[in-house]
Amino acid sequence: MRVRDRDYRSIFLADDGRSVVVIDQTQLPFEFALRELRAVDDAADAIRRMVVRGAPLIGVTAAYGVALAMHADASDDALRRAIELLGATRPTAVNLRWALARMESLLRDSPWAQRADRAYAEAARIAEEDVAACAAIGRHGLALLRDLAAARTGRPVRVLTHCNAGWLACVDWGTALAPVYAAHESGIALHVWVDETRPRNQGAALTAFELGAHGVPHTVIVDNAGGHLMQRGEVDVCIVGSDRTTAAGDVANKIGTYLKALAARDSDVPFYAALPSSTIDWTIIDGVREVPIEERAAREVTHVAGRTDDGRLHEVQVTAPGSAVANPAFDVTPARLVTGIITERGVAEASRAGLAAMFPEHVGMRTVGSAG
Amino acid sequence: MRVRDRDYRSIFLADDGRSVVVIDQTQLPFEFALRELRAVDDAADAIRRMVVRGAPLIGVTAAYGVALAMHADASDDALRRAIELLGATRPTAVNLRWALARMESLLRDSPWAQRADRAYAEAARIAEEDVAACAAIGRHGLALLRDLAAARTGRPVRVLTHCNAGWLACVDWGTALAPVYAAHESGIALHVWVDETRPRNQGAALTAFELGAHGVPHTVIVDNAGGHLMQRGEVDVCIVGSDRTTAAGDVANKIGTYLKALAARDSDVPFYAALPSSTIDWTIIDGVREVPIEERAAREVTHVAGRTDDGRLHEVQVTAPGSAVANPAFDVTPARLVTGIITERGVAEASRAGLAAMFPEHVGMRTVGSAG
Repeated sequence: MRVRDRDYRSIFLADDGRSVVVIDQTQLPFEFALRELRAVDDAADAIRRMVVRGAPLIGVTAAYGVALAMHADASDDALRRAIELLGATRPTAVNLRWALARMESLLRDSPWAQRADRAYAEAARIAEEDVAACAAIGRHGLALLRDLAAARTGRPVRVLTHCNAGWLACVDWGTALAPVYAAHESGIALHVWVDETRPRNQGAALTAFELGAHGVPHTVIVDNAGGHLMQRGEVDVCIVGSDRTTAAGDVANKIGTYLKALAARDSDVPFYAALPSSTIDWTIIDGVREVPIEERAAREVTHVAGRTDDGRLHEVQVTAPGSAVANPAFDVTPARLVTGIITERGVAEASRAGLAAMFPEHVGMRTVGSAG
Repeated sequence: MRVRDRDYRSIFLADDGRSVVVIDQTQLPFEFALRELRAVDDAADAIRRMVVRGAPLIGVTAAYGVALAMHADASDDALRRAIELLGATRPTAVNLRWALARMESLLRDSPWAQRADRAYAEAARIAEEDVAACAAIGRHGLALLRDLAAARTGRPVRVLTHCNAGWLACVDWGTALAPVYAAHESGIALHVWVDETRPRNQGAALTAFELGAHGVPHTVIVDNAGGHLMQRGEVDVCIVGSDRTTAAGDVANKIGTYLKALAARDSDVPFYAALPSSTIDWTIIDGVREVPIEERAAREVTHVAGRTDDGRLHEVQVTAPGSAVANPAFDVTPARLVTGIITERGVAEASRAGLAAMFPEHVGMRTVGSAG
């Protein structure tokens, strides 16, 4: 998507065709700085320091990290070391392990002389697959937004989103924001309410930056405000991403998503989750019971990062010294609150039947006895 | 309530019996500093700079401000100037105007020689009335918490609260926190989930400080987390304050309250508003339609105040530069989501009938034609 009237992806090859360029997301939203990754160590460091973040982007960065390693040294030993190094950067990232396993299985049996080229090609393929899935999500979501636009006869469609499920988390387009960008490109007038998304403020920092850079009208609100806006008729549709989706359509996403889904239901606002089918866990049904919720560091709650008036980045403590803190990172929105799930194949009903009809190849992956 | 093993009120007379001492709330939660107000200008400054905040405390500070003025100069002209000066400090504060009107009507017809003494006595009376109302709210709420404690047989009762409706906003006890303090004093084991309460973080800063200083176990969470905790059975009861309550029991309170009420309903958690009956507006019925919602400064959303590791207070920008911001300060929780209203007279059903039965003297204050 666009930044300063240029088209960007969140990761791309440098002009030399070997180095990899990423956007330094630790500096956003205050500075838009590119970083060149020239060796596998740079890639590992970028993932570890969250220069890149977002499950799809982490996976693609790791894949390119393997390519950088193979470019320097295509030995079995170098391959093993690269996989280990990259795999240890973010221990809980599922996409990271998936991308590394895919690279390893391809390269293991490749002749050394072809490993670097094959690695670059495979990393590019992983990136293109993500772009294609996001673009498809955008097309299917666009149809929904077009209907809402028709109902509003020329006035902007008002979308509320939570956290950052935009192109910065992916390679291009994003998931929840893909329909927004697709609609904007089609000339549909939009306005996006952007939840700040404490504790890490991905909405206020990243989503607001993305939308602003691309020229999509938007307004940042604190996480407390969305219910009030829906109650007063100021929101036409909610679209959020998903970190993990059950086979029954329960959506595990950034903490606070559930509260917005409750408010949407209370005010008859349609609530969609937009996600690639790779985030659907076909082995679980009941999200509230079965999805483990990561408890993250207290410092994310006690401290807030931002820029002082003199232009420097600081972290400030906001909680009373000595007070205990809890930091559950995700919550589960039950399928009953989800109007539909926007996938790369189309919009599915948030139910076992709806998802099974759209992805019949996955039906039966869970044994009948454990379906509960 | 207690701070460092000493009992405090949020405002009290100095040993000389004339100066007024307040806690500098702009320094909380990082420093507990007392400020002495020696003249009406000091009182006005304390209200204006939010050294004191919270409707009841602002009212009492203004009343003592008039007393300080009368102590220096009991003339009609000095009285008029004091009322004007204090009335201009926080233009929208209802309690401020109410307290000043009460002081003015008492003093206007008093002999000059008696004005100072009468003013101090009246300010003290306003403070005591607030303490008595809060203490009564605490007693009535205690009965509810005692029942919950009995059901949990020895395990702590887990209360969730939003914003700061504690003794720092009042003179002592607080409103939403009065039942918590009363239960704690009675030996009931409690644990309080404290919503951070963006944008101004009164929960993380003030409520957490209050509870910590008094020794009540508590945990700070971001505003996004409460729904998840209720869904997982981690909350036994929600208690919030109210800035304005309709005759039908709709509760206008700090932005985000409504989202917690929705989550409480979805997980069958009882949800109470605790308030002195002075916050009930008997002239309105439908909170969502009739309560105007204050839109506050964008900077409260774009910037967060806190302490850097070197111990200095800073404001840091957290939103993308150039992004628009909206900042509605309150929302309305419809009576249908409120389990009960804890007042100084007892716990009322959140309905016209329930409130009318408890406060029969107010019935009929609205003409039938406008009841809608």
